[in-house]
Amino acid sequence: MNSFRGQHILSVDQFDLDTIRQVFAVANRMAPYAHRQKRTKVLDGAILGNLFFEASTRTRVSFGTAFNLLGGEVRETAGMATSALSKGESLYDTARVLSSYSDIVAMRHPDAGSVAEFAQGSRVPVINGGDGPNEHPTQALLDLYTIQKELADHGKSIDGMHIAMIGDLKYGRTVHSLSKLLCLYKNIRLTLISPQALAMPDKVMAELDKAGHRVTITDQLTGSLDADICYQTRVQEERFASKAEADQYRGKFRLNQQIYTQHFKSNTVIMHPLPRDSRADANELDNDLNLNPNLAIFRQADNGVLVRMALFALTLGVEDLVAKYDCDVQWFTTKGQQ
Amino acid sequence: MNSFRGQHILSVDQFDLDTIRQVFAVANRMAPYAHRQKRTKVLDGAILGNLFFEASTRTRVSFGTAFNLLGGEVRETAGMATSALSKGESLYDTARVLSSYSDIVAMRHPDAGSVAEFAQGSRVPVINGGDGPNEHPTQALLDLYTIQKELADHGKSIDGMHIAMIGDLKYGRTVHSLSKLLCLYKNIRLTLISPQALAMPDKVMAELDKAGHRVTITDQLTGSLDADICYQTRVQEERFASKAEADQYRGKFRLNQQIYTQHFKSNTVIMHPLPRDSRADANELDNDLNLNPNLAIFRQADNGVLVRMALFALTLGVEDLVAKYDCDVQWFTTKGQQ
Amino acid sequence: MNSFRGQHILSVDQFDLDTIRQVFAVANRMAPYAHRQKRTKVLDGAILGNLFFEASTRTRVSFGTAFNLLGGEVRETAGMATSALSKGESLYDTARVLSSYSDIVAMRHPDAGSVAEFAQGSRVPVINGGDGPNEHPTQALLDLYTIQKELADHGKSIDGMHIAMIGDLKYGRTVHSLSKLLCLYKNIRLTLISPQALAMPDKVMAELDKAGHRVTITDQLTGSLDADICYQTRVQEERFASKAEADQYRGKFRLNQQIYTQHFKSNTVIMHPLPRDSRADANELDNDLNLNPNLAIFRQADNGVLVRMALFALTLGVEDLVAKYDCDVQWFTTKGQQ
Repeated sequence: MNSFRGQHILSVDQFDLDTIRQVFAVANRMAPYAHRQKRTKVLDGAILGNLFFEASTRTRVSFGTAFNLLGGEVRETAGMATSALSKGESLYDTARVLSSYSDIVAMRHPDAGSVAEFAQGSRVPVINGGDGPNEHPTQALLDLYTIQKELADHGKSIDGMHIAMIGDLKYGRTVHSLSKLLCLYKNIRLTLISPQALAMPDKVMAELDKAGHRVTITDQLTGSLDADICYQTRVQEERFASKAEADQYRGKFRLNQQIYTQHFKSNTVIMHPLPRDSRADANELDNDLNLNPNLAIFRQADNGVLVRMALFALTLGVEDLVAKYDCDVQWFTTKGQQ
Repeated sequence: MNSFRGQHILSVDQFDLDTIRQVFAVANRMAPYAHRQKRTKVLDGAILGNLFFEASTRTRVSFGTAFNLLGGEVRETAGMATSALSKGESLYDTARVLSSYSDIVAMRHPDAGSVAEFAQGSRVPVINGGDGPNEHPTQALLDLYTIQKELADHGKSIDGMHIAMIGDLKYGRTVHSLSKLLCLYKNIRLTLISPQALAMPDKVMAELDKAGHRVTITDQLTGSLDADICYQTRVQEERFASKAEADQYRGKFRLNQQIYTQHFKSNTVIMHPLPRDSRADANELDNDLNLNPNLAIFRQADNGVLVRMALFALTLGVEDLVAKYDCDVQWFTTKGQQ
Repeated sequence: MNSFRGQHILSVDQFDLDTIRQVFAVANRMAPYAHRQKRTKVLDGAILGNLFFEASTRTRVSFGTAFNLLGGEVRETAGMATSALSKGESLYDTARVLSSYSDIVAMRHPDAGSVAEFAQGSRVPVINGGDGPNEHPTQALLDLYTIQKELADHGKSIDGMHIAMIGDLKYGRTVHSLSKLLCLYKNIRLTLISPQALAMPDKVMAELDKAGHRVTITDQLTGSLDADICYQTRVQEERFASKAEADQYRGKFRLNQQIYTQHFKSNTVIMHPLPRDSRADANELDNDLNLNPNLAIFRQADNGVLVRMALFALTLGVEDLVAKYDCDVQWFTTKGQQ
């Protein structure tokens, strides 16, 4: 049974173990299409309104690609300046008009709550591609999907795992949403490592506690962590009042091959929401980790396409029709070989 | 007989009753495709050059969607900064080059006369999507189509109707173009309500007079108007010398449920070219009218897609082939149910 | 045999006479599709990542159109501001992520060497659409293709031809790349006409010398040149330190009908990489040449689509499958009639 048909996807709060399983099962089936072993035209003629009112390339192109991979077409915006929104138009009006131009909408907007407000005026389903400091549900889902897949390679499951979250846990919406989803599971240990001023908010802490998970808080990366997953965050410069304030925290929890080996297991999976700041004065994930097979950051991006294909297929009710519209891949491809 | 095959569509001056009927007849036939009851691939392989050299989201996406709904593909620009036009390239050169990249062009540009100039160098048909203060013919056509459709619901026709136009009638190109089209009809009464400084230009007044229409001019919204249509305009901030000057006229002719009930009939249709300014200090159309079934502003936007589909189909000569390339809609849709 | 399958196309240095012949042979076969006599769906389902991190309309739309003309789909970016690159992301990371969203990438970026760096992280073939002052190989190829085609109309070939290059030969990457390709041919005479400060760089001069070509250098356009081809360049304002510096050289080598008749043959072909500056104070190519049949500048742009279609077809290994997926053109077309 498809619980998603015609529904908006605005928040991780909408998900439970059953709906997560539905999404992940379909995502698994999308892999051959993303790897160009097959292709499908199941959404031939359908139109995605890819409405990005905030600067983004990767998430916008990821949603657009996911829709193209199902055979659909994309109409998009990239940025606010070219929009009537700058002439005082309400989100409701924008939704009533723009939603009539597509079969489904993926939307990103800098203001918290904006996507839900848009959804109220929309005549088609809306998928939240990020509403400022609030949510980015597809990121949380692809993170969870990645965790499940990586743990499965180690013969483990999400229940009972140990995850370390490092860096800016106060402004990082990805760790908030991921934590919420983890509350659906059992016996998870979380080690939260951040400067005190950037600690995980109380609201999230309360939910983790209610779910019965064991949480360790520290402001130092020390000793040996037997973490299965290490989720590194980026300093959310745009969420701080000023760059100077953000800069105080850069480099606090840097991870490179040497530090990784010192504190983590030989198979701890390293994750990061990207983009990764590679400038000389940044902290984050050093490039010497690029060849470490435990660095899952690019597999996360790949999984994002699978999860978004799954959400599109489920919302438009075609998850069981994908194979019916299979075609061959007629061109030479280097994909799926890595 | 199709009068449009291979022709540019630059101005409302090109239209007469016969060509308008052709466009509206095809637009009617496009409704099932826009409502996703059917889909067509009649323009499969065709390419629209959607060249928007001025900020716009709704009109650009409307044109792109109309072309996608006919099965075609879209290549577009959004804004001037990314264009060679900023390196001193002439519109003629731009047209010779960019027109070779598509089968038909829809174009918006801030300068009056620019689209006609581009069309001279273009090797494919060009549809004017708005050339600054000059014309926006597809808007005029969708406005007229909306009027005809709304009046038909009341058992009336355009001949003999009474339309009130309110607000900025000096800079509002939509009311100029609509008035020109109305000159093709008979026995129309127009009540023009605007500040004296924003009155309808003499040129338009002369044409209305020549067409034998009765025109009443006033700078007050008073009494009972038995208007069939009320066309509200927006303050064209970008056409004034300064924002301060534009602000003098905001709120002069505000319309909300109470004012509407006070001055209009119970079935007067309310129209507006959008976007509607919903900020606290704006005038225009209040949100308390949103649930009033006589508010036709979103039906106008929907009709814009039908009219643009019709113009594409006629110009590319496929108006009688659309049904031949029908396919089923394979996905779950919430459209056409409102 | 296709030498291009799965390969990056980053520099003219990759080409020899054999590979050039392969590209031009396929480009010739693409003409009926670009002229809408036929259409093909050979790349139906394939996705081009059209990654333009620098302002461009014509080249971006040319690549996109070429891919659409083969039946493929396009996902693109236009500009840097909307990219994570502005958050310190490395080109390697950008490539690892964005390349997973398409089957092939065309890329433009303002920094020399950037496209090659991106290609190292890319999981799909990358075509260089221009990396700053460095290279723009598809421009060089379309220039050479145009030269070959125009000379063939005169019963001549590239071997033994006489080409005059005029204007900014120091910063003009198009003349550098074209000169390199000409080094593959025999017995070419080059007349290089530029201000001394903007002379062809020594590196290029050395290669021309090594190839055995005869080069004449002058800073004046005088007398009668029996050139077969006259390649005019534009003042590369963006490559100078300041506009004032660039302005010193404007107008030095203006070409109009009178000057052309005075110095060139009656059938000397006039070429220019576009855009052409048509403002009053510009030099370059005057509009009075627009009706001169020897003005090949728009044929160059048309040929750009053919060459890019050929590169896509060869890289994705479908050059011999194009005709297999032929379809009719269902719409009325004015193309191919000029």
